[in-house]
Amino acid sequence: MSANLHDLPTPTLLVDVDVLQRNIEDMAAYADRAGLALRPHAKTHKSPAVAALQRAAGATGLSVATVSEAEVFADAGHTDLFIAYPLWLDHDRATRVRALLQRATLTLGVDSADAARRLAAQLAADAAGIRTLVEVDSGHHRSGVPPEEAGLVADAARHAGLEVGGVFTFPGHSYSPAAQAAVAAEEADALKRAAASLRDVGVEPTVVSGGSTPSVAHTHADAMTELRPGVYVFGDAQQWELGTTTPDRIALTAWSTVVSHAGGRVVLDAGSKVIGADRPAWATGHGRLLDHPGARIVLLSEHHAVVEWDEGPVPELGSRLRVVPNHVCNAVNLVDELVAVHDGVVVERWPVAARGANT
Amino acid sequence: MSANLHDLPTPTLLVDVDVLQRNIEDMAAYADRAGLALRPHAKTHKSPAVAALQRAAGATGLSVATVSEAEVFADAGHTDLFIAYPLWLDHDRATRVRALLQRATLTLGVDSADAARRLAAQLAADAAGIRTLVEVDSGHHRSGVPPEEAGLVADAARHAGLEVGGVFTFPGHSYSPAAQAAVAAEEADALKRAAASLRDVGVEPTVVSGGSTPSVAHTHADAMTELRPGVYVFGDAQQWELGTTTPDRIALTAWSTVVSHAGGRVVLDAGSKVIGADRPAWATGHGRLLDHPGARIVLLSEHHAVVEWDEGPVPELGSRLRVVPNHVCNAVNLVDELVAVHDGVVVERWPVAARGANT
Repeated sequence: MSANLHDLPTPTLLVDVDVLQRNIEDMAAYADRAGLALRPHAKTHKSPAVAALQRAAGATGLSVATVSEAEVFADAGHTDLFIAYPLWLDHDRATRVRALLQRATLTLGVDSADAARRLAAQLAADAAGIRTLVEVDSGHHRSGVPPEEAGLVADAARHAGLEVGGVFTFPGHSYSPAAQAAVAAEEADALKRAAASLRDVGVEPTVVSGGSTPSVAHTHADAMTELRPGVYVFGDAQQWELGTTTPDRIALTAWSTVVSHAGGRVVLDAGSKVIGADRPAWATGHGRLLDHPGARIVLLSEHHAVVEWDEGPVPELGSRLRVVPNHVCNAVNLVDELVAVHDGVVVERWPVAARGANT
Repeated sequence: MSANLHDLPTPTLLVDVDVLQRNIEDMAAYADRAGLALRPHAKTHKSPAVAALQRAAGATGLSVATVSEAEVFADAGHTDLFIAYPLWLDHDRATRVRALLQRATLTLGVDSADAARRLAAQLAADAAGIRTLVEVDSGHHRSGVPPEEAGLVADAARHAGLEVGGVFTFPGHSYSPAAQAAVAAEEADALKRAAASLRDVGVEPTVVSGGSTPSVAHTHADAMTELRPGVYVFGDAQQWELGTTTPDRIALTAWSTVVSHAGGRVVLDAGSKVIGADRPAWATGHGRLLDHPGARIVLLSEHHAVVEWDEGPVPELGSRLRVVPNHVCNAVNLVDELVAVHDGVVVERWPVAARGANT
């Protein structure tokens, strides 16, 4: 098992286990101080081994994005699962959700009266074992209803025979420079209004769930009961550039080799097929180099990262460098395993068991 | 095996076999008329089944991007392989290249004298079985040497004991609106100058290889001997938006379900974890809908594509739509199999055997 980093093929996704453990413990302590449950989003790591570390640190359960992610984590013994998604149960998904109920406690997202009625109809008697949360749009404008309409959806769900546990939101507009405090305030306001909307129809929310890695430091704990950050476990270049993490907190990198000096630049073998192609308009490049903060990936293709170097001579051909993906969730989903490293030595290999679990 | 499309879980990547076959045959006929060898880039499909169709239509061999892709295709019986990449042979890659030589005919890319010497040193006596091509930068500014320096690299390679077969380039700057004819002219000019540079050091190039899907229609056949397009087999939204393909030529789509009508828009379950996150600055969105050319994906996250609808009422919750990824190579690399469809019925499932083959 143990191997020197320089014996690994490149590109390989490495996880620094010490940084990872610190990130997990710090978020758990933060949620604890705030008096909030922590239900980390497992879409980031897709790895039962990392989920086990989160639960050992106090996570109450996991968030997932798809039924197939729920299947993978349930099979690995992580059985308290919230599918934080506006589910539309077609026949295939309904069949799988029913099977999951035999081995997991499920909370499901809904964002319309039609979806709630569909869910109840498809699950029939099995629906009794499920808790639903109404998704609310707190300003990201992706999915979810306006806060004032949460009661309408809750009422429809309840009349269809579903248990309504409360509301949830994803304040994804926190992924924008300097937006985090304002977004967290918007999130809190939306959740309070949504909870009031549920009470208006006679439903007392026991779960009010939100949070995103960029905005979590600004959490309004009085507005919610639960946090669902995902990216915080590993960190990534987006968080670095938003100022919501620092390089010493970044646990995951793509170990890569300098293959060319074409044009006087540094060409690495870590391309979009291992670090992902995410590039928000505000990012300064297609990823960063952990140990060279001034360098920038100015061109990214499937197997090339072209780096402009800012400091001294470029590293030699064959040198190994650590690339920080812009969006770590999409990078992890490109590999079958993560290589866990402690003090420069490989200590474990963690299967990305839910890689490709989209359905 | 045969199943109705509506029984499939979503999202699933579908391939229309009739469109695929037409794309393959048309490109083969084009290369044949031009008097050029066709060595399609297999990084697009990563599937031995699709490679077999290309070879049946006359492809002389395959291009691949990595040693591990070469391993997968060699294992599947595709044994004439060009690794079109500026290889730097570390110990791991050298060991695998030597093993590959037992079962495949390899052509390898080099873009520096150092890389050529390294290759010769690492392969030692086995180097005799390998042909190298010198990579030239024809204007994309990714990897490759200036055309005038090709002879220097060729000379170093030859003195290190390698066979030099010629030169290659990738004119990737063809991925820009209205650039295709000019880029093809630049490519031809660069290849002619590179070939002349080889002759200056006494190496007669027998392979002069180039081509990209956007620019291939403008090929200067007098400047080259071989074409290596990849994307043409499936097409994608980038090609559609560049005007280098038309919707009826797009073979691959992500079959997806309308899960929400949040904000009066259409939210689909095909996100960046199945269509990829590529979005060039000139693209009009994060992907397109094959059957609704006026619709635009205005927001893409891992499991949500938010679509602004231009025409009439939005499709009902639970409807199925075909999403065209912006960059098909990255989409294919996200799934374990492609579902081949003929007349709306599933006819085959093709393993994406080289998915994740980055090393």
